[in-house]
Amino acid sequence: MKTLGVGLVGYKFMGKAHSNAYRQVHAFFPDAPRPRMVAIAGRDVQAVTAAAEQFGWESHETDYRVLIAREDIDIIDVSTPGHLHHDVVIEAFAAGKHVLCEKPLANTLAQAEAMVHAWRAAGTVGMINFNYRKVPAVMLAKQLIDDGRIGEIRSFRARYLQDWLHDANAPMSWRLQKEFAGSGALGDIGAHITDMAHMLVGPISAVTGMLSTAVTSRPLEHPTDDATHGDVTVDDWVGYLARFENGATGVFEASRLATGRKNQNTFEINGSRGSIAFDLENLNQLEVYLDDDDALVRGFHQVLVTDGNHPLVGNWWPAGHIIGWEHTHVHQIRDLLTGVASGSSPAPSFDDGYRCQAVLDAVERSSASGQWETPVPLPD
Amino acid sequence: MKTLGVGLVGYKFMGKAHSNAYRQVHAFFPDAPRPRMVAIAGRDVQAVTAAAEQFGWESHETDYRVLIAREDIDIIDVSTPGHLHHDVVIEAFAAGKHVLCEKPLANTLAQAEAMVHAWRAAGTVGMINFNYRKVPAVMLAKQLIDDGRIGEIRSFRARYLQDWLHDANAPMSWRLQKEFAGSGALGDIGAHITDMAHMLVGPISAVTGMLSTAVTSRPLEHPTDDATHGDVTVDDWVGYLARFENGATGVFEASRLATGRKNQNTFEINGSRGSIAFDLENLNQLEVYLDDDDALVRGFHQVLVTDGNHPLVGNWWPAGHIIGWEHTHVHQIRDLLTGVASGSSPAPSFDDGYRCQAVLDAVERSSASGQWETPVPLPD
Amino acid sequence: MKTLGVGLVGYKFMGKAHSNAYRQVHAFFPDAPRPRMVAIAGRDVQAVTAAAEQFGWESHETDYRVLIAREDIDIIDVSTPGHLHHDVVIEAFAAGKHVLCEKPLANTLAQAEAMVHAWRAAGTVGMINFNYRKVPAVMLAKQLIDDGRIGEIRSFRARYLQDWLHDANAPMSWRLQKEFAGSGALGDIGAHITDMAHMLVGPISAVTGMLSTAVTSRPLEHPTDDATHGDVTVDDWVGYLARFENGATGVFEASRLATGRKNQNTFEINGSRGSIAFDLENLNQLEVYLDDDDALVRGFHQVLVTDGNHPLVGNWWPAGHIIGWEHTHVHQIRDLLTGVASGSSPAPSFDDGYRCQAVLDAVERSSASGQWETPVPLPD
Amino acid sequence: MKTLGVGLVGYKFMGKAHSNAYRQVHAFFPDAPRPRMVAIAGRDVQAVTAAAEQFGWESHETDYRVLIAREDIDIIDVSTPGHLHHDVVIEAFAAGKHVLCEKPLANTLAQAEAMVHAWRAAGTVGMINFNYRKVPAVMLAKQLIDDGRIGEIRSFRARYLQDWLHDANAPMSWRLQKEFAGSGALGDIGAHITDMAHMLVGPISAVTGMLSTAVTSRPLEHPTDDATHGDVTVDDWVGYLARFENGATGVFEASRLATGRKNQNTFEINGSRGSIAFDLENLNQLEVYLDDDDALVRGFHQVLVTDGNHPLVGNWWPAGHIIGWEHTHVHQIRDLLTGVASGSSPAPSFDDGYRCQAVLDAVERSSASGQWETPVPLPD
Repeated sequence: MKTLGVGLVGYKFMGKAHSNAYRQVHAFFPDAPRPRMVAIAGRDVQAVTAAAEQFGWESHETDYRVLIAREDIDIIDVSTPGHLHHDVVIEAFAAGKHVLCEKPLANTLAQAEAMVHAWRAAGTVGMINFNYRKVPAVMLAKQLIDDGRIGEIRSFRARYLQDWLHDANAPMSWRLQKEFAGSGALGDIGAHITDMAHMLVGPISAVTGMLSTAVTSRPLEHPTDDATHGDVTVDDWVGYLARFENGATGVFEASRLATGRKNQNTFEINGSRGSIAFDLENLNQLEVYLDDDDALVRGFHQVLVTDGNHPLVGNWWPAGHIIGWEHTHVHQIRDLLTGVASGSSPAPSFDDGYRCQAVLDAVERSSASGQWETPVPLPD
Repeated sequence: MKTLGVGLVGYKFMGKAHSNAYRQVHAFFPDAPRPRMVAIAGRDVQAVTAAAEQFGWESHETDYRVLIAREDIDIIDVSTPGHLHHDVVIEAFAAGKHVLCEKPLANTLAQAEAMVHAWRAAGTVGMINFNYRKVPAVMLAKQLIDDGRIGEIRSFRARYLQDWLHDANAPMSWRLQKEFAGSGALGDIGAHITDMAHMLVGPISAVTGMLSTAVTSRPLEHPTDDATHGDVTVDDWVGYLARFENGATGVFEASRLATGRKNQNTFEINGSRGSIAFDLENLNQLEVYLDDDDALVRGFHQVLVTDGNHPLVGNWWPAGHIIGWEHTHVHQIRDLLTGVASGSSPAPSFDDGYRCQAVLDAVERSSASGQWETPVPLPD
Repeated sequence: MKTLGVGLVGYKFMGKAHSNAYRQVHAFFPDAPRPRMVAIAGRDVQAVTAAAEQFGWESHETDYRVLIAREDIDIIDVSTPGHLHHDVVIEAFAAGKHVLCEKPLANTLAQAEAMVHAWRAAGTVGMINFNYRKVPAVMLAKQLIDDGRIGEIRSFRARYLQDWLHDANAPMSWRLQKEFAGSGALGDIGAHITDMAHMLVGPISAVTGMLSTAVTSRPLEHPTDDATHGDVTVDDWVGYLARFENGATGVFEASRLATGRKNQNTFEINGSRGSIAFDLENLNQLEVYLDDDDALVRGFHQVLVTDGNHPLVGNWWPAGHIIGWEHTHVHQIRDLLTGVASGSSPAPSFDDGYRCQAVLDAVERSSASGQWETPVPLPD
Repeated sequence: MKTLGVGLVGYKFMGKAHSNAYRQVHAFFPDAPRPRMVAIAGRDVQAVTAAAEQFGWESHETDYRVLIAREDIDIIDVSTPGHLHHDVVIEAFAAGKHVLCEKPLANTLAQAEAMVHAWRAAGTVGMINFNYRKVPAVMLAKQLIDDGRIGEIRSFRARYLQDWLHDANAPMSWRLQKEFAGSGALGDIGAHITDMAHMLVGPISAVTGMLSTAVTSRPLEHPTDDATHGDVTVDDWVGYLARFENGATGVFEASRLATGRKNQNTFEINGSRGSIAFDLENLNQLEVYLDDDDALVRGFHQVLVTDGNHPLVGNWWPAGHIIGWEHTHVHQIRDLLTGVASGSSPAPSFDDGYRCQAVLDAVERSSASGQWETPVPLPD
């Protein structure tokens, strides 16, 4: 089987997580094509050199254009802040590369649209890294829904709660500035639960939402004579209600101010014959309620999703030996590699990325208009 | 201490719960005035006779007007379906009685307004039975908030999820008909979480909401030649976003279709220095997160609220011996009796009842208008 | 249906709990004979008078012999400290009364034996108040086991953990003195889990155990010139291993020093085809694991035992409205009254009381001998 | 920094886990010496070749003696079944290698003794792979205890429950035969909780225990004309009580028949001022109860042990991004490499391995004698 050359742009949090996935995938998914960790790119030569050494890349580049130009690279992995996605992705597709892009796809819907068109024009594989689709417990949820185990879906509710900004003295960063991050809690973590809803329930047809910023000014990491604080120009909280095309209702909330909640990405789905609940902080577990159980023992099953018959997780360790957060990225990369080998883009594709972006865009418009808004479908 | 004569209207679920509270209060709260269970009223003479015998009432009446007229009765307790609240309450106040009214106060805001005015005119004690204010764990939450333990409140989220209507074959009842129930999940259980928000966070200034009815027709309990099914004319699901006057954000959801959730009345409050979470299905517990804990051991405390130093609960049993749902009503009655003795209406008063009603009314208007709506303040 | 006259000996913790049960039983179990709360007895006339008034007894006595002699009393309820059980019970049976006795039956096996013989000689109803048999979730566990749902039982483990003595400055009391209490954690709370094992698994055939006293001296409540502290002469911790007659294994632990555990009476049963777990601090829930579930969704069901089809609990409130600790006593009294009406002693009977006592006795002997010991069967 | 050559013996479950650790350690603990994955050894040439390729070893050997003889190897990692530990370890030490040995150290105490002496004679680094010492939550528990946060330890209880043998039709394997495995649940998983007790509480001075085998015959994987089933010659369940040297009490249970429990390695420690609880199935969490909390909010803290200030875990991902089971091995290898660099054996050393073995030996003797038994100290 041909080895696939990978070039990664970005070496911080997501760069570290993706590097890990490339390094790990073969040992646990030997049936997938094997990646070659060809090069990592970043503008700071010292930092990117160190990252290459630490994370196991053969070489490094300081210009993503050079990376894209390399013939030993088949896949470009874009793990940069959101405002840089568009240019790198467009150029990578133009060069005929396969592309994995971090979420959210872009900072504006217009950019996302252009990126989808670039992907279609290239005809290569394009994926967006909604890695929480790849949690085995979530994959099990999807399987149970598809098998009709909980009947017709009526309600979906999801919260993604973090607290790393709850202290008003937490410093400014690019994630708090609209020009770099696009939005705050909405695009960063609201994107994840929106995509989750799309996968598990189906398309969202309308939303009404509210963005809020409780802490509007934060200390600069590098204060100047002129300024000790900078303006926070993105939301730190967002809530939205949704209608799905199939008639289900949705309630969404994302916050970076939820004191005590570190990474609570949680959803519950109520169907006409059962329900399913999940929480990322305990990601090896799925809660499942089934009307089909006999009446005496009906109750949410606490399913420890670590058995050989559960999705993907059997490739790791025996039952009861839990996996962690990073494994979702390994699964994502496994799907990417398999997709490249087969020549078709696995889910979540750039189409999924656009669909999510369109909902985030509608939420922002709704927060401004005070009205229900409709996601803009992808123009032809 | 003078014994207080009580007359109860209604003998079904709430009638049983209130009867229990009057029967129990003296044994556990001997410092409160002792109630005398004078009479219970209901239209079905056979049923009300049986209820009097079973629940411990000295006598019964089949006409609430006769009950109100009795001189041995100080307090009228209105535990009927919502469409009957208005008339009974107005007449009871007119007769100079103290009144405890089940929630929601009324089926329309106009009725609620009239009832508040009647209360003010009477000058007697008026309470509304938002019994979940009287859960010791909830009272502890209130105390911690008031003491500044979690800082400034930024977000509130609450869900009240039941599933007794999730089966499309669950039969029609008065609770599913707008003329009797006013609304569905909104007024029945959404009222509880709205009042909880008012108590814990403060006044709600605006809402946007959506009502939904997934099962629009249900089998009649007594089918006729003409009809086997009746139309459901109230919501079975509602979601709403809120802004509080103090700037906090709110997310609310109530459902009677949440398969597997029997009585999940749950809330979480995020403050700038801590968080609090509660779930009625495990009502003896409060979860509390405090920034003031040292960093190594920060995490939600699972507080078993059964100690002598916790609110009210020490009057029951030693630490670790949990109380149940009905005890909240005993606490409510204890406050009612104490209020009557002292001559002032304890919280939640008819004012609180109106405030809640005004939010429910705004949610209904918002669901129709698709816009943010403002609760109507009580006219002078 | 004839009303049954009750006389209660004891007015402290257990007296309050039993009083509550007699006051409540008719309102929720109207099909059982109705008790008449005739008289409560205690040596302190002021305290017993107050107790009668507060808890709803028609009269009081200061001599239990007078109570036993009263002709308007059918049932004697013995809720005193353990060293007083023997005499009151023997005399009550001699007078032809039905008897409910608090656990443990007695402070010595010889006393217990005499009490069983007195019961048999009287031919009246005799029950011992192992109230945790009457938790609906526990009754459901029993039903599932009897129906073969978890197969053949292989292992049982139980812990009863409290912490009210973990502070070395908690004062002396009769519960810490061997002459009054018989033993410490063993008889007080170890008795409960031993009886639970007997009910759920079957007879225990041998034990090896260890008693321990970590805090051997405690401050007197009323210090004298001679002494500020008294000697603790009972265990504050006990652990024992057991073999059951059916081959199952057992692990038991009881402690009053388990800092942070208020009333954690918890057990787990592993069968060849499933498992069951329970915790008294969350007594409305039963956890059930069934091999018969299909493999994808196997996991412990969190069964909220509040449905109408669950044992007894449907007589209280609708599904999801939880009951508390005191309700177990109401169920016990309901069974007592029904037993008296039918003329046969319901479980747990005095035989069950003896069987438990014999195991506690064997554990004490084992702790002294360092060997496995066998419970002494009831002599003919 | 010098790279350390590693040779691994064994390529099954533990071989895979250790391989992963060597492959991962540098990316997350760049300050530790870097391992070089020189060679993996196993008797089946096809299997070991495949393992080398999949897990990332540079070469393979089919004779562990050749592995030990290689000069490019500094560390021998023994991940074989227990009956093979002794010979490989003795020879590795004789060759001057550093050794990591899987638990339990040996199948008999005599072997363990010889291995410790070999280690001492070699003067190289010797570690035993009690990897659960390296769970960050467990390390935090140790830190809290050492800092006196829970006061004086009074009780320890631990269970290690699995269910992979609960089906009587689960097939025979080397783990069920005394000549290969030494013992069953006792040595395989009881060893882990015994070592945990040693680390957290201190030395065990005496035990009384019971071994049990519920399923005594199992189907052969390769039935012959003569036999379809083989005899199970080890325990599938064990319970033991312990006294610690410091006066604390202990209750231990290990089972492979605990239907529904996949890998429940759980302990609780009660101190005079607080308590700590842990469960491996939710290994990122530690429960901590502190008397020092103010009375209103006392309760077990649910500490999500993923913060930068928690032990080791900050090297992985931001707070709230959980790690899995395999990470404990990475931590173990990190300590091994650091120990080799510094020239001293980190805990758990071969001494710790012996101490554990001596307790297991005493439990086996106690099960036979029915008496309390004392662990044999290491002879000089």
